Amino acid sequence: MTALLLNGKELAAKKREQLKRDVEVLASENIVPGLAVILVGEDPASQSYVKAKQKACEQAGIHSVLIKKPTSISEEELLSEIDRLNNDETIDGILVQLPIPEHISEQAVIERIAPNKDVDGFHPINIGKMMTGEDTFLPCTPFGVVEMLKEANIDLIGKHAVVVGRSNIVGKPVGQLLLNEHATVTYTHSRTKNLREMTNLADILIVAIGKPKFIGADDVKDGAVVVDVGINRVDGKLCGDVDFDSVKEKASYLTPVPGGVGPMTITMLLENTILSARKRS
Amino acid sequence: MTALLLNGKELAAKKREQLKRDVEVLASENIVPGLAVILVGEDPASQSYVKAKQKACEQAGIHSVLIKKPTSISEEELLSEIDRLNNDETIDGILVQLPIPEHISEQAVIERIAPNKDVDGFHPINIGKMMTGEDTFLPCTPFGVVEMLKEANIDLIGKHAVVVGRSNIVGKPVGQLLLNEHATVTYTHSRTKNLREMTNLADILIVAIGKPKFIGADDVKDGAVVVDVGINRVDGKLCGDVDFDSVKEKASYLTPVPGGVGPMTITMLLENTILSARKRS
Repeated sequence: MTALLLNGKELAAKKREQLKRDVEVLASENIVPGLAVILVGEDPASQSYVKAKQKACEQAGIHSVLIKKPTSISEEELLSEIDRLNNDETIDGILVQLPIPEHISEQAVIERIAPNKDVDGFHPINIGKMMTGEDTFLPCTPFGVVEMLKEANIDLIGKHAVVVGRSNIVGKPVGQLLLNEHATVTYTHSRTKNLREMTNLADILIVAIGKPKFIGADDVKDGAVVVDVGINRVDGKLCGDVDFDSVKEKASYLTPVPGGVGPMTITMLLENTILSARKRS
Repeated sequence: MTALLLNGKELAAKKREQLKRDVEVLASENIVPGLAVILVGEDPASQSYVKAKQKACEQAGIHSVLIKKPTSISEEELLSEIDRLNNDETIDGILVQLPIPEHISEQAVIERIAPNKDVDGFHPINIGKMMTGEDTFLPCTPFGVVEMLKEANIDLIGKHAVVVGRSNIVGKPVGQLLLNEHATVTYTHSRTKNLREMTNLADILIVAIGKPKFIGADDVKDGAVVVDVGINRVDGKLCGDVDFDSVKEKASYLTPVPGGVGPMTITMLLENTILSARKRS
């Protein structure tokens, strides 16, 4: 079997066309969705992520504001910047690019963002609502993963989804979203004793641990759907947590890296921002 | 093998002795923990649960207030009653006994309770914090389950915990708490295709679906730890979701019903209330 590709780049492009049309509809009601991005410091990776988000906003017709702060900013100053944006009626979404300097509490920052502008879906109240299945902003990467599976008409009901990695940003929430879609969900992680036996049970395997080519063909059941959330740089080249070349001979569906989950994350951020703007009206 | 009993009644009694001492310490700082329970309507089961909570408070030295409202109460009236308790400095914990009449939104009620008085652990912000491992009120039944396992020195790290049932009150949170304890966690439920194969993989099996004797000896691995959260009434007699008599010959540990998880739930409610009172000082 050679896996069909779950092409996130294509799906993201298609979705962004739809988002553009959504923005036009909002424009006819005199609403321009607005996203504020706070970047603290000069980390090159963060700068490039932020640039990509801004460019995507521009292409979709979303008003984006970049607020740059020095690493010397105090927690209090950063929190009052967030307060200002919480009260700014032209801003529908606020995100603080992580990581932030260690002298500032990440949790305090996340909790200060107004839940109805938390388009990253990181505020505990939004995480809680996601878990109980209430309507809320879904965290962008897990949201993007589920959208890719749905776009490919992959049946999730009663299927065994195994998640490798239990980060707060990807692993834990993607498991909850798949559970909400009626999958049977297993969380595995660094402490799991028989991890490679567990991954072999997966109808749907989601890998998000940040270890290059950690999952090989022997770890995957014949015909499994494999979603690779990892982005690693090895010898100057990007690769995922899944050994693409060997796993593609065994899986039924597989996401490439790059061009898989990555492009979906920003797309869902745009979708959340537009969703938030729509609630203004 | 004959299973050792996980005796919730005994552990609850032991814990309540400790809580009494905690209350005495608080008394020396002139703090009396206060729990307010709102009961809407005359449902006999709810009345008996509320009575049990009040009695447990009294025995522990916790000040408890019962607020009875007719089923005709409007959502607005109920919410303002909650506001009043949110602002009452003698009250550290507020719970609204569920279910409430259908004309009132359960979600609105849960979200109105101040998160720092939400001793049931049902507010989305507390659910979100539980999920990301932040310090917060844990929901009482899942909290009680984990306490029982710890008391019996059952190693959870890397063990495969299978949860049957995905309710917001038990199944979902107990899975997250076990994940926080470094177990490998599988959620199964009504849509799971091979449920009885999955339960057979469990080192630790938590059953919370409300179906009498649903899990039998054939569904359990030799030596598994089995926690039965179900409370069902069959022919006037209480029984759990697990067929006690057959499973006890196969499991290494098993909770009885009654006398297993049940007594722990109220105990953890008391513990949360005292925890909340301690934060006053």
